Amino acid sequence: MIVATALVLMMTTPALALFYGGMSRSKSVLNMMMMSYVAMGVVGIVYVLWGWSMSFGGDGTFFANPFTLFGLKDVDWTSYIAVCFQLTFAVITAALISGAIADRVKMSAWVVFLPLWVTLSYFPIAHMVWGGGFIAEHLAAQDYAGGTVVHINAGVAGGVLALIIGKRVGWPKEQMKPHNLTLTMIGAGLLWFGWYGFNVGSIVFAAGDGGEKDTAQFMSETGVTFLNTTIATMAAMLAWMAMERVLHGKATSLGAASGIVAGLVAITPSCGAVDTVGAIVIGAVAGALCAWAVGLKFRFGLDDSLDVVGVHLVGGLVGTLLIGLLSSSAAPGGVDGLFYGGGLHSLGVQAGAAGIAILWSGVFTAIIGFAIKYTIGWRVDAEAEVEGIDSDQHGETAYNLHAGLGGSLTGSSSSVLSKSIQTEGANA
Amino acid sequence: MIVATALVLMMTTPALALFYGGMSRSKSVLNMMMMSYVAMGVVGIVYVLWGWSMSFGGDGTFFANPFTLFGLKDVDWTSYIAVCFQLTFAVITAALISGAIADRVKMSAWVVFLPLWVTLSYFPIAHMVWGGGFIAEHLAAQDYAGGTVVHINAGVAGGVLALIIGKRVGWPKEQMKPHNLTLTMIGAGLLWFGWYGFNVGSIVFAAGDGGEKDTAQFMSETGVTFLNTTIATMAAMLAWMAMERVLHGKATSLGAASGIVAGLVAITPSCGAVDTVGAIVIGAVAGALCAWAVGLKFRFGLDDSLDVVGVHLVGGLVGTLLIGLLSSSAAPGGVDGLFYGGGLHSLGVQAGAAGIAILWSGVFTAIIGFAIKYTIGWRVDAEAEVEGIDSDQHGETAYNLHAGLGGSLTGSSSSVLSKSIQTEGANA
Amino acid sequence: MIVATALVLMMTTPALALFYGGMSRSKSVLNMMMMSYVAMGVVGIVYVLWGWSMSFGGDGTFFANPFTLFGLKDVDWTSYIAVCFQLTFAVITAALISGAIADRVKMSAWVVFLPLWVTLSYFPIAHMVWGGGFIAEHLAAQDYAGGTVVHINAGVAGGVLALIIGKRVGWPKEQMKPHNLTLTMIGAGLLWFGWYGFNVGSIVFAAGDGGEKDTAQFMSETGVTFLNTTIATMAAMLAWMAMERVLHGKATSLGAASGIVAGLVAITPSCGAVDTVGAIVIGAVAGALCAWAVGLKFRFGLDDSLDVVGVHLVGGLVGTLLIGLLSSSAAPGGVDGLFYGGGLHSLGVQAGAAGIAILWSGVFTAIIGFAIKYTIGWRVDAEAEVEGIDSDQHGETAYNLHAGLGGSLTGSSSSVLSKSIQTEGANA
Repeated sequence: MIVATALVLMMTTPALALFYGGMSRSKSVLNMMMMSYVAMGVVGIVYVLWGWSMSFGGDGTFFANPFTLFGLKDVDWTSYIAVCFQLTFAVITAALISGAIADRVKMSAWVVFLPLWVTLSYFPIAHMVWGGGFIAEHLAAQDYAGGTVVHINAGVAGGVLALIIGKRVGWPKEQMKPHNLTLTMIGAGLLWFGWYGFNVGSIVFAAGDGGEKDTAQFMSETGVTFLNTTIATMAAMLAWMAMERVLHGKATSLGAASGIVAGLVAITPSCGAVDTVGAIVIGAVAGALCAWAVGLKFRFGLDDSLDVVGVHLVGGLVGTLLIGLLSSSAAPGGVDGLFYGGGLHSLGVQAGAAGIAILWSGVFTAIIGFAIKYTIGWRVDAEAEVEGIDSDQHGETAYNLHAGLGGSLTGSSSSVLSKSIQTEGANA
Repeated sequence: MIVATALVLMMTTPALALFYGGMSRSKSVLNMMMMSYVAMGVVGIVYVLWGWSMSFGGDGTFFANPFTLFGLKDVDWTSYIAVCFQLTFAVITAALISGAIADRVKMSAWVVFLPLWVTLSYFPIAHMVWGGGFIAEHLAAQDYAGGTVVHINAGVAGGVLALIIGKRVGWPKEQMKPHNLTLTMIGAGLLWFGWYGFNVGSIVFAAGDGGEKDTAQFMSETGVTFLNTTIATMAAMLAWMAMERVLHGKATSLGAASGIVAGLVAITPSCGAVDTVGAIVIGAVAGALCAWAVGLKFRFGLDDSLDVVGVHLVGGLVGTLLIGLLSSSAAPGGVDGLFYGGGLHSLGVQAGAAGIAILWSGVFTAIIGFAIKYTIGWRVDAEAEVEGIDSDQHGETAYNLHAGLGGSLTGSSSSVLSKSIQTEGANA
Repeated sequence: MIVATALVLMMTTPALALFYGGMSRSKSVLNMMMMSYVAMGVVGIVYVLWGWSMSFGGDGTFFANPFTLFGLKDVDWTSYIAVCFQLTFAVITAALISGAIADRVKMSAWVVFLPLWVTLSYFPIAHMVWGGGFIAEHLAAQDYAGGTVVHINAGVAGGVLALIIGKRVGWPKEQMKPHNLTLTMIGAGLLWFGWYGFNVGSIVFAAGDGGEKDTAQFMSETGVTFLNTTIATMAAMLAWMAMERVLHGKATSLGAASGIVAGLVAITPSCGAVDTVGAIVIGAVAGALCAWAVGLKFRFGLDDSLDVVGVHLVGGLVGTLLIGLLSSSAAPGGVDGLFYGGGLHSLGVQAGAAGIAILWSGVFTAIIGFAIKYTIGWRVDAEAEVEGIDSDQHGETAYNLHAGLGGSLTGSSSSVLSKSIQTEGANA
């Protein structure tokens, strides 16, 4: 559990920050990374104050009393690792949203948004699914590591905010290419690595509740979860690349990185519910469907900048709903889906849980989003956005590579580029 | 074992992808990284389908029946982590080969090569060494974590393919410098980190077979393995740098990164066979010898682009053969090498295992290599190779740094560089 | 412990190398990274030879006999992981110093400095605090994971060396901006991840000594440590950013990354001594104070290039001294500080330990620093420093990005930039 928790924390900083940062433009990469880092700081502290209490602090249909375990009072030290583990989930869910609203949001607005959103959207859904609330009690849907709580929740919130905040200046006419795909590839790789903390850790977390499983059963469940996570992700990466080849002629590295994340997202809720074949199918469907879905934003004119809706909402839905079709009583979850002779019950339950998550997240995100829009405002000046949000919000630029570019030609106080510009001026 | 498996998976993506990607040219870094990512996807799925069965699925001189445990049918869930652990070894071995044929190979050819090669070369050698096949039965050579199975195998395959596929356009006249050594340094560091999964995990994997070792023995063996891995790598890094200083006057960071990998390679087969002094010697010999060996490709005109032969074949041989000289009955392996009074037996056995691996890998890689050459073909167009394989194969360029370079000087739709080019045109 | 040890090793290479490398200039990034990598190699081997023996090899007021366990003779294999764990602490402490003397030091001088410094400063202080020496025996100060041994020690050494070696050419008139803040952000994230090995691993290491704690107590102590490490770091990051906003108007990503490290440093000695509130306070104080302290170097004219004094000495002092105020008998350490009704005793003890570490490190670093200055000399030529230390010391430049910048415009043997330069020449 200790290792799993450290791994999930690493998923936000640096992994997600890199994945998103590489996709943004070079004039806004620091701001993009900072949205993850700041989410880590703000959500983390809120979680210790009232997040754990609202999520796991007792009974309640929609959420538990935030004051019962405020500041972890009366929480036994032996539960602290579990608190930290759940804390990292809240952090990454909030951080995921930032991809939908890249390059245009004031850091102050983000700092205000974070505690409101986790309080109104994340903690309640976590309580409903994992903490004994409404969904756990009335639907008993399967969601091992956060298809509803994390991915559908973040995907919906990202879409709603992108709608409220509006498009970037110049989008979609201007091409806004990823500025450094090597960062995105590092990020995807580290996310994959960390995701074992996510999925396998969740099995261990769940086992901790009951405490009645023996070692062999423990090894079985972690083994199935690990294998499912691995092959679903592989299948999704290959499926995304195949879909790209069909749609656009070439398979890209951005596609491979996105396919990895799509596969990880889809297997998150289902990692303990399906067998090996089921995992491959879920991965392949998620990879192909998300690859197609990320193109829709241009049709709808929604500037979901780094495809939070296309990957996390769609991928989360694929994983959550396919449990209804593909879950197997021969998997640790022990429930048969439609294709395994279990009838429509499981599918209905999964769809119900997904629907509640979509509705809840949509409504509360909209409320917070509009509240911020009409008070402190979301966006930086259009001019600052064009000049670069890094410079405007942080007074920095990510790269100062001059001295390295020209090798021995560059002195310490001048640069090839600035010389070149001066020359142009002289010629003009 | 769970952590070790996640670590070894991380070694391929992103660690190896970074190590190789940084060394390639900026116009081909994405393709280089993609060769690792695609190896992960393709080999991973093949492994679950018939790789585990061929390697560990039963008796057989050269390989086991691929259909016995096809798709892991009849494999107990408690073995799934072991399957995943071995899967990651197959993945990285295949991915290692890509360094020898960087910057010039069609992705489609690579996708065809991967399943053929692991089926004909990797699974059989893994079975022969670890799965109870020929080498295990008749030679009882020591190979803890893959000197023969992984490194000699990949090194030979890389050399054979580089020969069959031919040189890059312009090589060796043109300098083809690493485009981003910081990526290579990150990669080397993460490989080192992940390698503990490789080596220490292999000790645990081996212990799982017998199941009779007690905790103290377990702690001893993992401790020795960990320490040996650490100091052999340190010694190899320093030895490579020292050799560079002697040969070329300056110790480079590329040399330090390569030395780390050479040391890790050499201690891989021997990590449980030698004592502390033996580990330092193996590391130092591997670092120095590989540093010298990587220069040979220019003499032989073999464009082993990122030195797979020089590091993995040479380093793997150093580690495998020095066991014959330096293994100690006071190490977990319990066998005395020549210098420890054990006579020539161990050396003979190790040389035999290495010889079989070289022969087997060489023959089958050549067959597959020529088969692809004379059917779908290996290479991209020469023009595409010069323009950049990233653009040709993936429709992408890794870096779009314009907006960040000139700071406030750059607008959103133009760039210093493009302005500079226009100016040149006007002057011409 | 195995995982913790691998994590701490990863903190030096690549994490610290990235953190520092990103902050240096592009013409010296490789040299900066190499100082960490070389520290790993040299200190690692020295540690196995006589470091363990001097630190933990027996009695002694200031240090133990370096020959008792020379080369780990008579060390039981079951202790090898503990040796490796402590080895990684020595490595990172030495590597930390390099940030204070960036961009201007000969690699040969660094290679000579490393074994001398760990022998005269690190091993004795480690022995005094953790190995049963003077501080442990007479003061019983609390230092869980190295506030005195690691951070005060490295911070003082960095400051003393920066003073002896002198400023970089052009400093402070010339702006010496970080050349690649994405590397620094990756580094900070990976340091955070690895620090759990540092802090939580130290609790486990300490538990290994007694061996009398039961599982619940073990879970409690690791849980408290993990949570304290997490929230102190979050608080420090936010506090640094807040302080920057107050002082300079904008919160930077460099500040966030530095705040993370400051928080980690301050919670290092105190991670097991304080409760949740105490951890937040320690983090916040460290973040704010260090953010202010890093500005002082300009006032004093001390070119502590990457703020080793401002972060590690100040942060280490904050953590070490605040234990005297904030430690709680309700934390695993079991000691009440001044604010918890424990009187001034704890504060006095902590100040005493800090004072001894400062004095010891200062004196011995000065001796070694001057000895090197007046024999082989520390600095590269001023010209080489301006041209770039990477090129001078390693014959390399980190980035060769030409072919990637212009996309299809660049050929293989020429580049946009070199064309541009030729044009300038023709115009001149």
